Amino acid sequence: MVSIEDVALKAGVSIATVSRVLNGTGYVSEETELKVLKAIKELGYRPHFSAQALARRKNFEVGIVVSRRIQEILSTEIGVFYKIILEAIESASAMYKISTETICLDDWDFKTNHDGYILVGSDATEEQILKLSSKAKVVLVDHYIDGLRVNSIVSDGYDGVFFVTKEIISKGLNRIVHLHGPLKYYGFRDRYNGYVSAMTRYGKLPITYEYDDLHEDVDNVLKKMLRDWVPEAIICSNDVIALRTLSKLRELGYKIPEDISVIGFDDIPAAEREGLSTLRVQKSELGLNAVKRIYELLTGQSLHPYKQCLYTLFVKRNSSKY
Amino acid sequence: MVSIEDVALKAGVSIATVSRVLNGTGYVSEETELKVLKAIKELGYRPHFSAQALARRKNFEVGIVVSRRIQEILSTEIGVFYKIILEAIESASAMYKISTETICLDDWDFKTNHDGYILVGSDATEEQILKLSSKAKVVLVDHYIDGLRVNSIVSDGYDGVFFVTKEIISKGLNRIVHLHGPLKYYGFRDRYNGYVSAMTRYGKLPITYEYDDLHEDVDNVLKKMLRDWVPEAIICSNDVIALRTLSKLRELGYKIPEDISVIGFDDIPAAEREGLSTLRVQKSELGLNAVKRIYELLTGQSLHPYKQCLYTLFVKRNSSKY
Repeated sequence: MVSIEDVALKAGVSIATVSRVLNGTGYVSEETELKVLKAIKELGYRPHFSAQALARRKNFEVGIVVSRRIQEILSTEIGVFYKIILEAIESASAMYKISTETICLDDWDFKTNHDGYILVGSDATEEQILKLSSKAKVVLVDHYIDGLRVNSIVSDGYDGVFFVTKEIISKGLNRIVHLHGPLKYYGFRDRYNGYVSAMTRYGKLPITYEYDDLHEDVDNVLKKMLRDWVPEAIICSNDVIALRTLSKLRELGYKIPEDISVIGFDDIPAAEREGLSTLRVQKSELGLNAVKRIYELLTGQSLHPYKQCLYTLFVKRNSSKY
Repeated sequence: MVSIEDVALKAGVSIATVSRVLNGTGYVSEETELKVLKAIKELGYRPHFSAQALARRKNFEVGIVVSRRIQEILSTEIGVFYKIILEAIESASAMYKISTETICLDDWDFKTNHDGYILVGSDATEEQILKLSSKAKVVLVDHYIDGLRVNSIVSDGYDGVFFVTKEIISKGLNRIVHLHGPLKYYGFRDRYNGYVSAMTRYGKLPITYEYDDLHEDVDNVLKKMLRDWVPEAIICSNDVIALRTLSKLRELGYKIPEDISVIGFDDIPAAEREGLSTLRVQKSELGLNAVKRIYELLTGQSLHPYKQCLYTLFVKRNSSKY
């Protein structure tokens, strides 16, 4: 049997690093994460399972459903988020002896017959999810729909943004604003609620600006914000918004973080390069836990549906005072 | 080895019922649930584990921490909620070969040395939780503190109340109010957010009344509510509030559910007796999943902390039109 040492050797990392990726502990760079996931998949490494128990049961077939929008950005900077989730799903599927087939949400007629489906990203509609869950086990990753009772694995944006807002309030910063994406998306709404909740809890007025990073230039919203007043901290809905904000503020002559602290969410590779403080989403954990959950559902363990909210990790770099 | 058939026989129920309790599927009455949990514990039943794998590892010792407030109400109607959770924790601990010791939160000097702790209920403070999690693995049950990143198993009040609010809006009911307990408690706040979120999503004005069921009479708040207008539906924060509301409204001559629908949350035994429609919390699932989680943490699997939010189940009885 393949050991964790073999995986470490092949990936060119330490055993502790492999363990960190599998257990979601500590900080591992995206690049290393991808290397470890690749080695796991190629070697067919299977931790924590008795070989006997695995041999006894049938092989499951699971469809991995992704929208065209996500497929098209996979090789870009923003798409790394989904790339790591999808790699983690493939690696973990190999561990559980699950065969996978990637399905494009937009082209699909819902006629294939897999044992279960993992839907990645927030593009699947309520109708599509209901249709699918009436005929197979379904797990959503980075997606949740209110009141639908479908198994979901998400990152806890509420908790993360609450934490960081509370933290900078406690350090004495004032005029903390939230620059967020469209609130029709669950993820943005969740983070927005964390900000509003922390501000009101500590007696501060929440001040929010909406900005659609896919269709707008950040200039207009920042002009509007700076016309009102100069904030001491801007907490952004994601790293893309935060990085654009950072670059525009510098262009306008503000010193970062002396004048204004800027904080992102996700921790994409550019965040590390640009020294952006951010709330890191453990992306491979999202994928690993999705496979673990679908395996439980397929083998009839712990069928009661739930939403699993993985806490984020605050990574302080140079764009924020605290 | 003890089989699921043995458990069913001893509890005097069907195998399907035992399986429902263990997997959190479908409806099982509280009484049956307690019988099954008792049989599991007495027989030492262990599902889904290879005996070999279990034999290989050490026995863990876990402290089950409960406040005096909860210990004192355990034998009352309201306390059944906690009684089932605690029974489920004991049964599941036996499955995982974990020894448990019950600890009273209020008397405790935090000096015992267990491998881990399961804290049941919302009385533990932030300081107590931080102190404990700095020296051992900790899982909270029915408790969560914003931004603390501690493993929590909770019922998803947001999702449940969102679902039922949406449901009765879609059936054409108007004037839907929310009668809630003190919002300093996470559980009440979570359900409150589900109500407000559904009302605003569907273009309705949220109307809320606060009522402290431990220290107040329900008469005053209902008088105030009915002076404003007569609602068509009252969604309550828990069953105790809903049952008191039900009885007072009937005393005042209202027909339930013709004039007013009343909906609770929890599904305590009195809800079933009184025909109260309610959002059922799968209590034994909370306990079982807490033990499963602490076992994962103690054995070094899946260490990344998360909040697990178990969806509730809407049980329609006679107190509501839909």
